Amino acid sequence: MAHAGGAHQDRIAVLANGILAGNRANLAQAITLVESHRADHRADALALLEHLHPHMGKAIRIGLTGVPGVGKSTTIDRLGCQLMDNGHKIAVLAVDPSSKRTGGAILGDKTRMSALAARRDAYIRPSPSSGTLGGVASRTRETMLLCEAAGFDVILVETVGTGQSEVAVADMVDLFVVLMLPGAGDDLQGIKKGVLELADLIAVNKADGETRQAAEQAAGQYRAALHILTSGDADWSPKVVTLSGLTGAGLQDFWTNVLAFQEIMTGNGRWASKRADQRVKWMWALYEQRLAALIEHHPDLQALAQELERVVRAGSRQPDAASHELLRAVLRAHSAEGN
Amino acid sequence: MAHAGGAHQDRIAVLANGILAGNRANLAQAITLVESHRADHRADALALLEHLHPHMGKAIRIGLTGVPGVGKSTTIDRLGCQLMDNGHKIAVLAVDPSSKRTGGAILGDKTRMSALAARRDAYIRPSPSSGTLGGVASRTRETMLLCEAAGFDVILVETVGTGQSEVAVADMVDLFVVLMLPGAGDDLQGIKKGVLELADLIAVNKADGETRQAAEQAAGQYRAALHILTSGDADWSPKVVTLSGLTGAGLQDFWTNVLAFQEIMTGNGRWASKRADQRVKWMWALYEQRLAALIEHHPDLQALAQELERVVRAGSRQPDAASHELLRAVLRAHSAEGN
Repeated sequence: MAHAGGAHQDRIAVLANGILAGNRANLAQAITLVESHRADHRADALALLEHLHPHMGKAIRIGLTGVPGVGKSTTIDRLGCQLMDNGHKIAVLAVDPSSKRTGGAILGDKTRMSALAARRDAYIRPSPSSGTLGGVASRTRETMLLCEAAGFDVILVETVGTGQSEVAVADMVDLFVVLMLPGAGDDLQGIKKGVLELADLIAVNKADGETRQAAEQAAGQYRAALHILTSGDADWSPKVVTLSGLTGAGLQDFWTNVLAFQEIMTGNGRWASKRADQRVKWMWALYEQRLAALIEHHPDLQALAQELERVVRAGSRQPDAASHELLRAVLRAHSAEGN
Repeated sequence: MAHAGGAHQDRIAVLANGILAGNRANLAQAITLVESHRADHRADALALLEHLHPHMGKAIRIGLTGVPGVGKSTTIDRLGCQLMDNGHKIAVLAVDPSSKRTGGAILGDKTRMSALAARRDAYIRPSPSSGTLGGVASRTRETMLLCEAAGFDVILVETVGTGQSEVAVADMVDLFVVLMLPGAGDDLQGIKKGVLELADLIAVNKADGETRQAAEQAAGQYRAALHILTSGDADWSPKVVTLSGLTGAGLQDFWTNVLAFQEIMTGNGRWASKRADQRVKWMWALYEQRLAALIEHHPDLQALAQELERVVRAGSRQPDAASHELLRAVLRAHSAEGN
């Protein structure tokens, strides 16, 4: 730990107690710490997470994706308000590795979920604005744990469809939802390969007014297609529901399905075992990020990797020999760091 | 290189010339070299691949998967014979990381493709019998290159459906085929998630006798479901055909689709760019295998990794701190190897 002094540890304890008491300023402070790239902040963040560890893990963690325009914000806004009316506390987080937002975009997030933003029992945090997908996902995961310690019992992690980001979010949540537009087949240009395979629940939005019929039809088509193309699971096959983020229709049914999923997975022990698996997977993902950083943060190694990529791409060097040369160079450059 | 002596280099050159002249014993010798785990063999294999490099890359590389019983062998046997009748030379390779075969199973492979095995213009090689999926795939890839140098112009790489092995095969071929049984939906228990998304071509087998009708129906259902669930590509959407490995019906149409794919992808430049991308991806995959081997081949590090997995799984250690400790230990243990 960078600062193991008593006064310093006291500060971490004060921050932790503030979070446990529901102090919003302290939560925001802790999230800023978690998102920081400074080495001393990182050490503090880890100490804080360690401290709060017994108070984590009590929320339902839900991932949500869908193409732009599908109505994610409207749906989250409406769903969040309904859940708060039933006594829940909602945190909305985002994973968007393409986002290079400044302070202004936080306002953006709050504007697009205005009802939710106005309530005390909701917390909205935009995507960390820098770094690789792995880094962004890792920070969001830690933020999720902080929100759990702060008493939020429903965490929604939203992402915006790079294909990879959906996988990262699915790996941190209990249940993954894909929001679709009415008109099955027409709106798939935006959904990346493999994303529908991650879904525990598919929700066709805009089941209201003129598009209600189309939404029902699309849901039927998705159900039939899923039956043909996916193998399902002994305990849970992906469900397809319709809803309207605008009117709130179907949100109750949606939530009933979420709770049914939770009950089944708790009953068969997979709720807990999935989380344990996710933690181990996360450790290895972080290990691989650190390995990648050995090259990324070292100009000579980066130049070597690029040159090797070039000759391998051109076919003038065998991949095996190139990979061997790269590993030797990495070990040589970083041999001091193990000591 | 382990042996850089002139006499040694001559031996490599003699082997290479034998392969180029179509000497089957030399090809078999080279493949044995490529599959060996001995360090000196590996150095020889790399020297040989380097030497033969200008003569590689001229085949159509086709990946093929399907559940056991779908009729892969029968179909390959029949298709291979038809292609040889049209002047092609066929190599059939396999990626099966679960296989721990001995010499007897080579006979097995030749028995299950008896017509092909009897012909001079065909070469059948079973899966390398040891190692991780990454290792098996890497050896098969090098074997494929040797077969190209030996003048085989159609390479079929067969795999047996672990989910991961299909991805590995798709990453080494130009075109990936999934063979399906008639009766859409019924036979999906064996197809792993995401495999159908890899397919450039889906072929429903057993379009003969009593199951002909069912095969046509299944093909129609797959076409409809693919239309709904996948986004396709500007130049090529996955095609669904029916065929009979038993009677040969539909094999001509199947091959017409293969050639159409080749023509389109050659025309838009993606045939070559996909191969270049695959080489770079392969380099990084090998780099990651070598990184993983740093832990696997080191008992102390393996014990540490297992202990960290245990405490992270139990939740008593944060994944970030655990990954950091592991990386430091790996760098410390291997710092000498960069020199």
